[in-house]
This record gives sequence, structure tokens and C-alpha cells, in this order.
Amino acid sequence: MIMQELNVAILGASGYTGGELIRILVNHPNAKITYVTAEKHAGKKVSEVFPHLKGILDLKLEKLNPANLPEDIDVVFAALPHGTSAEVIQEINKRNIKIIDLGADFRLNEGNYSQWYGDHPCTDLLKVAVYGISELNRDQIAETSLIANPGCYPTSSILPLAPLLKENIVDESSIIIDSKSGVSGAGRSPSLDLHFCEVSEGFKAYKVAEHRHSPEIEQHLSEFSNKDVNIIFTPHLIPIDRGILSTIYVKTNKAYETSELIGKLKYYYKGCHFVRIYDEGKFPNISFIRGSNYCDIGIKSIPEKKSAVIVSVIDNLVKGAAGQAVQNMNIMLDLPETTGLNLNPLYP
Amino acid sequence: MIMQELNVAILGASGYTGGELIRILVNHPNAKITYVTAEKHAGKKVSEVFPHLKGILDLKLEKLNPANLPEDIDVVFAALPHGTSAEVIQEINKRNIKIIDLGADFRLNEGNYSQWYGDHPCTDLLKVAVYGISELNRDQIAETSLIANPGCYPTSSILPLAPLLKENIVDESSIIIDSKSGVSGAGRSPSLDLHFCEVSEGFKAYKVAEHRHSPEIEQHLSEFSNKDVNIIFTPHLIPIDRGILSTIYVKTNKAYETSELIGKLKYYYKGCHFVRIYDEGKFPNISFIRGSNYCDIGIKSIPEKKSAVIVSVIDNLVKGAAGQAVQNMNIMLDLPETTGLNLNPLYP
Amino acid sequence: MIMQELNVAILGASGYTGGELIRILVNHPNAKITYVTAEKHAGKKVSEVFPHLKGILDLKLEKLNPANLPEDIDVVFAALPHGTSAEVIQEINKRNIKIIDLGADFRLNEGNYSQWYGDHPCTDLLKVAVYGISELNRDQIAETSLIANPGCYPTSSILPLAPLLKENIVDESSIIIDSKSGVSGAGRSPSLDLHFCEVSEGFKAYKVAEHRHSPEIEQHLSEFSNKDVNIIFTPHLIPIDRGILSTIYVKTNKAYETSELIGKLKYYYKGCHFVRIYDEGKFPNISFIRGSNYCDIGIKSIPEKKSAVIVSVIDNLVKGAAGQAVQNMNIMLDLPETTGLNLNPLYP
Amino acid sequence: MIMQELNVAILGASGYTGGELIRILVNHPNAKITYVTAEKHAGKKVSEVFPHLKGILDLKLEKLNPANLPEDIDVVFAALPHGTSAEVIQEINKRNIKIIDLGADFRLNEGNYSQWYGDHPCTDLLKVAVYGISELNRDQIAETSLIANPGCYPTSSILPLAPLLKENIVDESSIIIDSKSGVSGAGRSPSLDLHFCEVSEGFKAYKVAEHRHSPEIEQHLSEFSNKDVNIIFTPHLIPIDRGILSTIYVKTNKAYETSELIGKLKYYYKGCHFVRIYDEGKFPNISFIRGSNYCDIGIKSIPEKKSAVIVSVIDNLVKGAAGQAVQNMNIMLDLPETTGLNLNPLYP
Repeated sequence: MIMQELNVAILGASGYTGGELIRILVNHPNAKITYVTAEKHAGKKVSEVFPHLKGILDLKLEKLNPANLPEDIDVVFAALPHGTSAEVIQEINKRNIKIIDLGADFRLNEGNYSQWYGDHPCTDLLKVAVYGISELNRDQIAETSLIANPGCYPTSSILPLAPLLKENIVDESSIIIDSKSGVSGAGRSPSLDLHFCEVSEGFKAYKVAEHRHSPEIEQHLSEFSNKDVNIIFTPHLIPIDRGILSTIYVKTNKAYETSELIGKLKYYYKGCHFVRIYDEGKFPNISFIRGSNYCDIGIKSIPEKKSAVIVSVIDNLVKGAAGQAVQNMNIMLDLPETTGLNLNPLYP
Repeated sequence: MIMQELNVAILGASGYTGGELIRILVNHPNAKITYVTAEKHAGKKVSEVFPHLKGILDLKLEKLNPANLPEDIDVVFAALPHGTSAEVIQEINKRNIKIIDLGADFRLNEGNYSQWYGDHPCTDLLKVAVYGISELNRDQIAETSLIANPGCYPTSSILPLAPLLKENIVDESSIIIDSKSGVSGAGRSPSLDLHFCEVSEGFKAYKVAEHRHSPEIEQHLSEFSNKDVNIIFTPHLIPIDRGILSTIYVKTNKAYETSELIGKLKYYYKGCHFVRIYDEGKFPNISFIRGSNYCDIGIKSIPEKKSAVIVSVIDNLVKGAAGQAVQNMNIMLDLPETTGLNLNPLYP
Repeated sequence: MIMQELNVAILGASGYTGGELIRILVNHPNAKITYVTAEKHAGKKVSEVFPHLKGILDLKLEKLNPANLPEDIDVVFAALPHGTSAEVIQEINKRNIKIIDLGADFRLNEGNYSQWYGDHPCTDLLKVAVYGISELNRDQIAETSLIANPGCYPTSSILPLAPLLKENIVDESSIIIDSKSGVSGAGRSPSLDLHFCEVSEGFKAYKVAEHRHSPEIEQHLSEFSNKDVNIIFTPHLIPIDRGILSTIYVKTNKAYETSELIGKLKYYYKGCHFVRIYDEGKFPNISFIRGSNYCDIGIKSIPEKKSAVIVSVIDNLVKGAAGQAVQNMNIMLDLPETTGLNLNPLYP
Repeated sequence: MIMQELNVAILGASGYTGGELIRILVNHPNAKITYVTAEKHAGKKVSEVFPHLKGILDLKLEKLNPANLPEDIDVVFAALPHGTSAEVIQEINKRNIKIIDLGADFRLNEGNYSQWYGDHPCTDLLKVAVYGISELNRDQIAETSLIANPGCYPTSSILPLAPLLKENIVDESSIIIDSKSGVSGAGRSPSLDLHFCEVSEGFKAYKVAEHRHSPEIEQHLSEFSNKDVNIIFTPHLIPIDRGILSTIYVKTNKAYETSELIGKLKYYYKGCHFVRIYDEGKFPNISFIRGSNYCDIGIKSIPEKKSAVIVSVIDNLVKGAAGQAVQNMNIMLDLPETTGLNLNPLYP
């Protein structure tokens, strides 16, 4: 086997997602980061905005300008604000480059997008983009050159729910998703809400039943299951750095034993390295997947109420962002799906 | 007004609930702590097991023996393991003493108790005990000498739900309670589960749909509303010291505006100092009530789904334990309900 | 005794020090907060910038203008940025008002001030202001109308060191102060440095041997001891909300037993309610004083090295700011020193 | 190059050091973990005591018995309680196996050991063991079959101090080491001291000037520098999972510029991948090295006091334990020193 070397660009490299892409890609055997951008920090070295990367990546950060993207770039990861992202990708997409967008610009169909974000700058590209939830969309991912990398909450919700909806186990109008996220999900820009003392020793719900990830979850669950999925979604903020735990309540179409539901999930995700289904009576903790690309899932049926409770966890920066992005890159480029993703959880 | 001075005993004073009773009662103008017990630490001074109380309460901890309870004790707070508590109270109750039990022994009716804890040692006392959720049971509390102080999760759940059930706003079979608690709720005994590194930077669900507080919530909501209330309850562990946030999902009997639901709650809790109902669009954070006796409640209706989301917060050691216990003492002794409870939240 | 009621103004009420002044003063039996200011938040209610104070203080925040300070104000607490503070106080001081400045403007003599902050706007007032470290300066505090309330690091350093220097036990040129502070000491303004994720699970030194509190410590220790005290001071940031722990290394003038040094400190602080000296082998934890006005001190002599290690803790927002300010108000107004300060530590 | 595959045993695999050895070694290209032991958990699978390792290492834990160690084991890592470790290693050492002891049994010479731990069970082996501070002892490490892997505090102290002592820059009798450690350094056994609520939002010094790592630091610094090094050492507990920051105060033999001292350290550690010396004005944060094998060092001279302040950070479980152990294995086996240690810091 010839060792393929890919030149990789990261647009928006000074935020937490950018930093995580770097952490993963510098160890990827087929990738070489050769171009990084950051608006406010252009001119600085990566290790100035991320001192932990001193000696690991000392590349200079450039000002973002699609025209200046080097000729030899093979893959672009965009971790940019929404709106900006679509504009930039419109330019880059004219070239023969694999693009993975970690923002929200290509995740929703036109109707949903305009309702939650405003007019979309390039609706034709929207139709081309593939939603990159790796385990569920492998075939389309392998064939596209533009990935809409899923949001963190949607990843944690769609992975456990999609199989149960597809198999008609779950009532599509009954779904309640109570999600809890670490603070890095809110990005790296300072604000009073993210001040250490405002977060520490606290816990809150926010954007109750009005978060932008709701339509993303509904749209893609509907597409996967061919049903009109309708959810209630409440995100919360946990005073930790990383991780999402979603507790999902569903009505089932009949009374199931817990073991049956576990069996369904295990069967569906057989061979999927990054999805770990727990045995009966076990539920995952966010700390079991910190820093890794796993999605861990536990489930319990309440047959007397024809209901079930599902608990899923991911690291929002890995399976919820940079890790799944690299997984998608691997699929796009026909590399083994786990390449560069042997990121064992850091515990404790 | 003559300043009444009450001699107070705390049984089980070396745990977090005991420590919190001390914090509150040493500043209570009518109370004097004169007797404290702790099994393992008998013989030590309070300030040896709680160094923060050095110079605040230097009383010696006694071995628990109901026969040795001093004659002049007026009020007993019991923060003992279940089982032990009932036995001790059976003895003490023969004397003319106000008793507030902060354990689980008198919270459930006989049927529920035996199902979740085993045979009850004194079922006749069980019938006499009053469930001490202060705002909802004031009249009975004023007349009893034995209070079953509510559990922390139940307090956070019953306060927002009882009025909505009583007024037939909420479907009693639709209730899902997703609760998140700080670690002090698990007590002070060391275990691997409570080791700092096992908890920190983590988040987990536990006892999914099988926690002992489920029947307590169901029983008392049923009693308050005269309905057969049936819930799904999932507790979670937050890596913080104190506080519970419950996110509660309900079906409503018709499509309500959020403002209507807020109005109902504000009306019901008018004059209740410790219940703060939030205005539309606002939701409470655990850090807003840390160290205080408040229960803060926010609510949002989703009329198109005939559903509502309620968020309530309490400090599990205060309104969820020691604070409500003192509030109940005040009611029992005809003192102003807020006496000694001007505990402003510690923020940050 | 006639209950004296004082009208109190807080200038700069939307920061953490302002919030803490409110928490304490709303329960002070002789004080009534009648006027509060905040620049950016003028027009809002206190409970909008501090939701935890909902129902506790719902006063409107005013824009700061000394000319608008109501006639009937008896005491002013200023928690303003340095520079601003001196200018405002210059105006207010013309009236018969007790002023307690919690900023840096009156803590240093002219020489030190100009070196660390630039030209002082009112050097004559500088000479009048009394340094408000309550236990050490009671007599002057009682007689002044302008208090320079000490910094948090200085309070934690001066209280243990002053007696040992005064009694010639410690070599004034040997002092090394290694301090660790919770994040609230850095104020409430958002910045990347204070973003939750940048602080959490980290620990760092900052302003190594160049922090503005160095000259404050040196100047006042020199004044108290009549020596030319010279220190090395390194502050660190702990990922907690509140509290300072200072580990202080000194050379002693001879080989002492630990018990002798403890004896000296206990003797010196006899009758000082807020200073707790620990017995041999015991050292304080920041969590033992959270939310309280205590300064706890432990000490160990290393006689074979003619050295000693001192560990002191305070809550930076209480004894290190608002609590000591109220203690100083009490002294100025001839109230019992502990009035309104029965703030038991919140543990855990 | 032929890919060498080594069979590796981990004795004491259920503690945090054991877990970290697994995290690193499962990705090491030349190592295969084939044997793991744990006393209390014998019979369980690794992933039962460490759920994060589900699907990563599902080996069964054995009861420790040196006689049962498989024949084909090439390398043994011992993460056992002191005392036990020496006894086990005495047995294993008779075979041709590379042994790396992560406990305290071979770190001290006989005199120091007996003073701090009691009689040593095998003093002859003590003379053979090499102190495995990789950067300083490479040659001896390469030639031995028994490594005493350094303690975490000593690693953080010796790396910055050894060069400065060797070059006569620092007065060997002046050294004060003020260290702060995350909680995982205290091990995984539950105790009240390590209960989440006793640690969280707190900070304390412990074993002030009497910690067992003092003689380890003094002995090895003395050996490296041929001086009689004498320190004052105070460890503290930070409420975080991982990491040590040591703030070190020294007297210098003359007035140095900061740049000179940085130059000395950079020169000394040239080519040492895992030691990162910071430029002037920069100091490391524990979060910059989390999960990695780096030791980061910043320094500032105070020429007018002929003193310097050094700040060093390591991850106590990596460079302070498992990472350095693997680094030593690489050196012993003539593999590139960084093999399997490309553990980028997890930030945030």
C-alpha cells in the first residue's frame, strides 16, 4: 500500500473545534496540515493562540481568503461562523477539493434554514451537501465532495434514535430529548455567560424548546425514517469542559423488554467501531468517552408504560465535531474509517 | 413579644444534612443547639468533623441513644439512615417533643414503603406523620408533632407540579421528570462512585426509572391532586456540590400561552416567600439559589404540542433538606415562617 | 438601645464585590441599601444583573454621578475601577459621609501609587485615608471617615505576618508568599482568560513577581513592623469561584517550636472573632471559610532550618473585600464589630 | 526495520496509573498488553473496572502471583503499593525481564527508605535499580533491567532544578518547592478526603514539610549535582483531576537576567522532545499538558534579590507516572524515545 499524503487546510483554526482538528490531524498518518486561518489572530503562530500545541504545530495563521488557498490543498475543514462558511465554501467548491463544513450552513434544507438562520447564500450547494453522520450515511459520504458535519446535539440524538425509528419501534411524535452539554460547545469567544464564575457550581437550561439544533434533529430523523418526526428538545449547560449526555424519552409501539431494545441497537451498529451499546442495567458517563470518537448508548424499557429511556454520550468536540469530521474524511478518501482516530478516552 | 428559646437536638450531625442544620440553626433567634449525635464520631467535637464550624459550634458529639436525650429538648431533627430513624423516633415520640425526620422513614404510606424499603417498624406512627412540604401542607404541619421532611428530588418536583395538577392543567399520566443533582445529595460516606476523579468532568444518569424518590413523588402528587399520578423519573449527577435542577415535561389539557401558566403559578404561590416564579423567557440556574431556601421555577408552554416544559431549582441541602426542616419547625411552633432563614444565595 | 438605621449607597454594584456587599448588607440590622449604581447596567434593576437577588433587592441601578448621591446617605461603599474611584471619592468626601473604598486608589502611598498606577488624582486625601485591615488598625479606623479597604492577597498575607514581624520573629527580607486565588478575584468582566474552558481543569501562575499587590503588602507590613519588608510574591489561579490560600515561607530569627509560633499568633489575635488560629498539625482549607468573614491560619516551624511555613485562607469576596468593608463600617460607627457578619461558612 | 512486538504485563491495573498505562500501551506499536492483575477486582474484565476501556482492552484481571507470570512476558510495569512491589519484583527479577516499578520501593537509598518507609525487603536490588528520570539518566536507563520510575512531585521538581544546580547557578540550601497537584495523584481508593464534596471548591496544603517525596527530591538532586541539596517542600491539592504545577523559589549565586536562565535551560534540554522551555514572560498552565508526556517550564529571575522563580507543569499520570514509564521502556529497549508517546494535550 502506498501511503497517501493529503494536504489539509483548517479554516477557523483558533476556536475549540479548530484546536481539536489540529490535535487529531497532526497524528493522522495520511494528513498534513499545511494551511490554517483565523481572523482575529492572523499573523500569529498556532502555538500562540493554543500554547498546548507548542512544538506540535507552529504554523502561522493566515487571514481567510478563499483565493489564497494553496493549490495543493486536498481537503478543507471549515470551522467558521455560519453565513461566512457558505460564502467561502461556494468559492472553494469550484476546485477539486474535499470539503467538510463543521458549521451549520449545509445541515438544513432550504425551508428550515431560512426559518432559523435567514436566507441561504447558495441553495444549489445545499442540495449537493451530504449530512455527515458517518454510521448512517456512509455510502453518500463516500461519493460526495461536500460534507455538512452534524451538530453535537444532533449527533448524540440521531445515532440512538434513527434505528429505533426506522424499525417502527418508537412513536415519532413522542420524542423528548433532554440534553446536557459541556461548555466548549458554546465556543471560545468570551462572554459573561461563559465567565468561569457564572458557570462553575451552576447548572441551567437554555433556549428551552427553541434551540437551532431542534430542526436539524427533526429533519434528519424524518429523512432517515421516512416519518414526520417531531421533538421537544431542551439543552442544558454542565460546568465541565467537554461532553454531551442526552436523556431521551420515547413512547414505544408496544411493550418491549430492555434486552430486545439493546439487541436491536447492537444489531444495527454491528461493526461500527465508534458506537458502543451498553448491556442491560449499564448507562454511560460523559467521562467514559472524553477525548474519544465514541458514542456510547444505554437504554431501558418501561414496558408497563410502553416507554423507554435512552442515554447517549459523546465528546462534543470529537464525535460531535472534529472527530466525526475526520471520520468523514476517511470515508470520502476511502481510508479505513478509524484511521487517526485511535483516541482512547482520557480517564480521569 | 417574649423571645422563645427552644432547645434543639440534631441526631446524625456529622453528615452534610446535619452540618447544614447546624449552619442554619446557630443563627436562628429562637433555637439553641444543645445536643448532637453521630455514631462513628461520638466523643469528638463538632468542629473536628466539620472544621468550618470551629468557634461556631464546639459541642461534643454523643452516641445516639434515645434514652439519653436530655429532658429539656423541645425539638429533635433526625438525619439518620432509614430504619434507624423510625426506631429512634418511636422512642422519642412518647415524649412531648416536636420531631422532624429528614430521612425516608415517614414519607411513604405502608404499601409504598414496604415495596421500596421493606417492612416498616411502626406503621401507626406512619399514619400520624405529616409530609412537610411547607407551602402545600401548612395547616397539617402546624398541628402535628411529627414531620416527614420531603426528599430533595420530590421537593423540586412537587412544588411546581402540585398546583398544575390540582387545577387540572396537566395530564397526570404524562409527566416526565429529568432531574440533575449535585453530589452532596449522595451523602458524606466515601465510595468509589463519589471519589473526586470519578465525578469531576463527568455527568451520568443513575437508577434510571427506578429511584426511591419516584414513589414519593407519585404518592404525594396523587394525594394533593386526587388523581392517580404516574411519572417517569431519571436522576443525574452533576459535578457540583449542591443544587437540584428538575426539567419537567408535561402534556397540558389544552393549548396554553406561557403567560397563563406563569399566572397560575404566581397566583398559587402568592405570599410564599421561598417560591419565586420567573417571568416569561427566564429560567433559573442552580447557582441562583445556592445556600438559600428558595425554590425557583420557570415555565414555557408549547401550545402547538399541548405540552409544557418546567424548570425548577432548589438547594438540595436547604429547601431540599435542612432549610425546609427549619421552615417546618417554624410553622409547628407558630413562629414566622422565615425566621432564621434569611439565607441569601451565595453567588458566585 | 436605639436601633440606628443607616442609609447605605453602593457605587459599582454590578460586579462580584458589589453583589457580595448587597448579600451582606441586606441582612445587616443597622443598614439599609437605598442607592446603587452601575455604569453599563444603569436603568436595570439589581435583580436583572444578579438574578439570585430576585425578591431580595429590587432597587434600580443608577448612573454614577457624585452630585446625584442622595442627601440622606450615611455610608458609601465604592467598588469602582481605580482612578474613577479617587475622583468620585474626592467629591463625596466633601460631605459628612463615611466612605469605604474597596478599590486600590487609597491603599498605597504616593510613591508606590505612581510607580504602579500612575499619577494620583488627590494626594492629600491619600494621606488621610486609613488602611482598613480591621484587626490591626481598629483605632485609626474608628476615627476616620475614609477607609482604603485592603486587597484580597494583602489581607491573606498581612494578617499572619504582621504579628510575627512586629515581634521580631521573622526576617523581613526572607518572605516568600505563594498565593492561590479563586476566579472571582479577577472580577466579572468577560475575557478569554476567564472563559470557563480556559480556567477549568487548569492551574497557572500569573504576574510572577510583578503583581500590584506586592507593593501593598510590602508597604503595610513595613509600617506595621517598622522594618523594611521585602517580599517575593507569586499569585496563582485556582479553578474555583472563591477563596485565597497563601502559603508563606519565612526565615525565623532562631529555631522555634511550632507550638511557640502558634502561641504567639493566638495571643496576638485573642478576642478577634474573625481570626482563627489552628492547633499544631492542622491547616486550613479554602472550603472551611467559604462565604464567611474568617481568616484561618495554620503554621509549622522547621527549627532545623530556622524557617516556618504559614498557611492562611480567606474568602476573597468577604474578608478580602465586602466582609472586611462591613467590619470596618461597624468599627467606624461604633457598632459591635461582628454586626451583620454572622455568615457561617457554606460547606460543602 | 523489523517490527519488534513485546509482551507486556501490568501489575496493579485497576488504579489510575494502571489505567493510564493501558491508555498509552494499547496504542504503542511495539507493545501488546497480555497480562494484567488487580487484587480486589481479580476475575473481572478491565472494562468492568474502567468502563471507558470497553472494546479497547477486554482482558481479564488476574490475582497477583509472580509465579504465574506468563513465560513470554518481556516487560513488566508494576503499579503496586510500596512494600508489595519490592517483594514481587524480587521474584520477577530472577527472570530475564525488563521491570519498571512505578511505586516508591526503589526510589530511595537504604538510609532514606528506612527513615520514611521502614526496613527495605531487598537492599541489594536497591543498589541495582536505576532512577528513571528519562532526560537525566538516559545512559543508565538503557543498560539496566530495573527502573525505579520517579514520583510525580519529584519529576516536576528535578527536571527544572537539576541543570541549574549542576551549573552552580542555584544555592542548594535555598530551595523552596511549592507544589500543587490534581486529585488523581492520591490514587483511586475511596476516602473522606477524596470525596467529591470535600475537594470541590476547596484548596489545601497537606503534609506540610513532611511529605515522602521530599527525601526523593533531595537525594536525586544531590546525586545529580554532587551537592548537599536541602529543600522545603509543601504539596497542595487542586480540585482538578490531573496535573502538577510546582512553583520553585531559589537563590542564585549572582544576579542573572531571565534570558540567561532560559538560555541555560534551553541549551540543557536541547533535543529533549518532552521538555518545553518557555520564552521570557510566559509561564505554563497545567491545562497545556493535560494527557501528554510534556514537562513545561517557565522561569523568571529577580536579579535585585539574586533570586529566581521557576514554574513547571506535568501531567502527574503521564510524565509523572505512566508516560515516563513508557519513555523508560523505549530507552531500555532501544526504541525511539517518543514511540507511542505522541499524546497531544487535550485542550480544553
